[in-house]
Amino acid sequence: MPRRRQATELPFVGALDRKEGQLGRQLTLVLREAIRSGDLKPGESLPSTRHLASSLGISRGLVTDAFEQLIAEGFLEAQPGSGTKVSRGLSEFPALNSVEQTKRAKAEQKLPPRAEAFAKVARQFAPLPPVPFAVSVPVGPTAPDDTWRRLGNRTRGLRSAAPSGYDDPQGVLALRRAIADYVRKSRSVHCTPQQVIITAGTQQGLYLACQVLLEPSDRVWVEEPAYRGITGILEGTGAIERMVRVPVDESGVDVEFGVRAAQDARAAFVTPSHQYPLGMPLSMVRRTALVAWARSSDAWIVEDDYDSELRYVGHPFPSLQGLAPDRVIYLGTFSKILFPSLRLGYAIVPEHLVPAFCGARSLMDRHPPSADQHSLAAFISEGHLDRHIRRVRLVYADRRMQLISIIERYISGDLAWLQPGDQGMHLVLWLAYTIDDEAVTAKAMDAGVSVRAVSPMYSEGKGKPGLILGLGGYTNEQMEKAVKKLAVIITA
Amino acid sequence: MPRRRQATELPFVGALDRKEGQLGRQLTLVLREAIRSGDLKPGESLPSTRHLASSLGISRGLVTDAFEQLIAEGFLEAQPGSGTKVSRGLSEFPALNSVEQTKRAKAEQKLPPRAEAFAKVARQFAPLPPVPFAVSVPVGPTAPDDTWRRLGNRTRGLRSAAPSGYDDPQGVLALRRAIADYVRKSRSVHCTPQQVIITAGTQQGLYLACQVLLEPSDRVWVEEPAYRGITGILEGTGAIERMVRVPVDESGVDVEFGVRAAQDARAAFVTPSHQYPLGMPLSMVRRTALVAWARSSDAWIVEDDYDSELRYVGHPFPSLQGLAPDRVIYLGTFSKILFPSLRLGYAIVPEHLVPAFCGARSLMDRHPPSADQHSLAAFISEGHLDRHIRRVRLVYADRRMQLISIIERYISGDLAWLQPGDQGMHLVLWLAYTIDDEAVTAKAMDAGVSVRAVSPMYSEGKGKPGLILGLGGYTNEQMEKAVKKLAVIITA
Repeated sequence: MPRRRQATELPFVGALDRKEGQLGRQLTLVLREAIRSGDLKPGESLPSTRHLASSLGISRGLVTDAFEQLIAEGFLEAQPGSGTKVSRGLSEFPALNSVEQTKRAKAEQKLPPRAEAFAKVARQFAPLPPVPFAVSVPVGPTAPDDTWRRLGNRTRGLRSAAPSGYDDPQGVLALRRAIADYVRKSRSVHCTPQQVIITAGTQQGLYLACQVLLEPSDRVWVEEPAYRGITGILEGTGAIERMVRVPVDESGVDVEFGVRAAQDARAAFVTPSHQYPLGMPLSMVRRTALVAWARSSDAWIVEDDYDSELRYVGHPFPSLQGLAPDRVIYLGTFSKILFPSLRLGYAIVPEHLVPAFCGARSLMDRHPPSADQHSLAAFISEGHLDRHIRRVRLVYADRRMQLISIIERYISGDLAWLQPGDQGMHLVLWLAYTIDDEAVTAKAMDAGVSVRAVSPMYSEGKGKPGLILGLGGYTNEQMEKAVKKLAVIITA
Repeated sequence: MPRRRQATELPFVGALDRKEGQLGRQLTLVLREAIRSGDLKPGESLPSTRHLASSLGISRGLVTDAFEQLIAEGFLEAQPGSGTKVSRGLSEFPALNSVEQTKRAKAEQKLPPRAEAFAKVARQFAPLPPVPFAVSVPVGPTAPDDTWRRLGNRTRGLRSAAPSGYDDPQGVLALRRAIADYVRKSRSVHCTPQQVIITAGTQQGLYLACQVLLEPSDRVWVEEPAYRGITGILEGTGAIERMVRVPVDESGVDVEFGVRAAQDARAAFVTPSHQYPLGMPLSMVRRTALVAWARSSDAWIVEDDYDSELRYVGHPFPSLQGLAPDRVIYLGTFSKILFPSLRLGYAIVPEHLVPAFCGARSLMDRHPPSADQHSLAAFISEGHLDRHIRRVRLVYADRRMQLISIIERYISGDLAWLQPGDQGMHLVLWLAYTIDDEAVTAKAMDAGVSVRAVSPMYSEGKGKPGLILGLGGYTNEQMEKAVKKLAVIITA
């Protein structure tokens, strides 16, 4: 190899495209790629800038700029008297796309254990197609009307909404005020706007609560069965053996069982308004016992109140938080009553815990996006949310009755039966013990029907087969078609 | 106490307000509160529905409904033959607002250790007021123009944008496509849309990377000094002793030092385009060495490329990811170049890690809000982002020069001097060793000037005093006023 290359020995510079312009930048790129690909090797000399400029028919200044850029990047080095060379420090430069690298990449397909666990979560949490019976799909009469969009357009014109700089991790004050007012009236939650933390929904509320409240060795009560969102978090932090599963009966979670099994637990994660997924409310006697336990054991109650707006008979139970504002982390969401892709909810926490929740949120993602918070604040405070709830409550009550009657018409009671309940946006369809609910779910998905299996909501080996059927703005025709398909799959 | 109360012995029912209407609901509320407050005690009998209805002058059906609701809630119990009583299971019912409870609440103000650590983070991450020199404040010429709002209004009219149901944790495909195209052209990032994961910004990208890549005992390289966002995450997960701080010199992070100190580290968190906070790029020799280390140690490089769009001289360095797409997690954000309250950014990861990142995100907050993703996808693919970057690059270059000259005019070089650098949205103003940068920051805040201290970005005891001065769309007059105030504070 000659000690000094000539310009003509740089074939790759032929790649310069005069029509494209920016010839200096093109030259930089081409030289850089040549070094990377190994066409130019560490220690090799480049032509002089004068030579290269004249052979390329471009100004010498452009070549000088390109060399200087590559010197700054460390690709080239200039030595007085011996011109410009490819940096010798690049000797270990890894050639891309080599055979060896491809092999290595294949070997790396094996994931580290935590990554493997998260990948499994991703499969379980994959969003369902927006067809019956995916929960909370805002179509037709259950979607917010044009008011939502108009408010969005209006608030986006405000200086404070968007664009704006880094914002409060606790959320926009106008929204916190509107929420404090709303939960006080609708759920007997005792709080000030200073206790409200805007979240991306219940899931983030649960995540933050785990972060802030739990030390690595703390045990927690989790309902049996439970929302996969909470068991997933605890599994993901390696806390699977710290989860004490507390069975649910017709009065909700069995507090006495919990006390016997783990009186020293640091927190109880519960769904008192409407047990998820089974649907019963926690009785007042149990509520009292739960609060008494939390007080005497210095423990926290995390009250996941994901869909209490949708009670169809009687008044909803007042929140647990109202009984013990000092012991309860209250979680709410707009995913169910408005729409999930909004990603806005709230945690209401004892005031002295507020800074800790804000700090945990800062590390996760800094703060909630601002614009939609302003829209939602206006939507609530101008009365649109109340009107929307009144409207969709009727729609969902109707859909629920329709779905029940469709199921009774098409599915044999020997194979599947509905769990009673008078609240919420889903029904549980229990399946005969001989049926594999995960297999049914997969087959239903193939047939264009979105359901979730119940058995993974129980701890290993305790699962009972069943399906979660979510309510959305589906028509009777859509629901009937989907139930007929389900009937075929279940019977098969 | 008489065995059977008479209606007239329920003074609290006088609270019913006939003008308000909903007398049945009011009665439920009043009875529930009477039980809670102890006015009605466990085991006490209620008047018959007939008696109560007649004494209140309301229909008996309303009273029956109220009783049934309270029986369902567990406040009352009905026994054949002996009428309706307050549930005896409520005997442990905690009276609210008791003196004892107030005492207890006071004692609980002491936070558990993790909560205390998060509260400290909250103080450090508190957003700065949008005055000089808070970074990335989109005012005047640095804010996106009306196009942003128009696009938002347009995409919000789409069915797929908002309202919509639960969406993909990886983000909206149109946006992932637009980003893959953008980073390929601007940063030589090698990726497909399938490798792009939409995040809420760099902070969430760092958080997800820590979740997915690190096992509890893994050591990691962190630059010295470093962005508090990454050291905060590692401290928050109790990994403070697993952080190997690797010093930064004029060529960026000292890779040889890292290899000597912790060759077996699982990951290196680096800011190669523009070291945060010091500002120098990582040299090509170091880049090569870093990639060689990652390959030989089976380690990951997390490349935080938070502001590479804003290089004012020469071309930006190509990304590290382009050198080693199989070993690098590339993080970008729209917080700097668009506006922070948007909360959108991206992680670009080797394809086999995508499901793990999606699973970790599902547990944190399910998925990014959908509507703004559609707006941003249109903003990029219709060419507005490129135009915006060209515009603000000129603005920031000008603001930067102006700020440098203002500082040279008003602040004595004995007390403070600027770190050179030709990229980004902030300058580092070093302070004489005798000056306490955190005290200066607090005093500046009181004087209406937003700066951040540099010393907390170093590990304990290694800190050098300095200030981060962020660029935004501030006028010369605003900057001059703020620098004069800073000069006074520093001189004091």
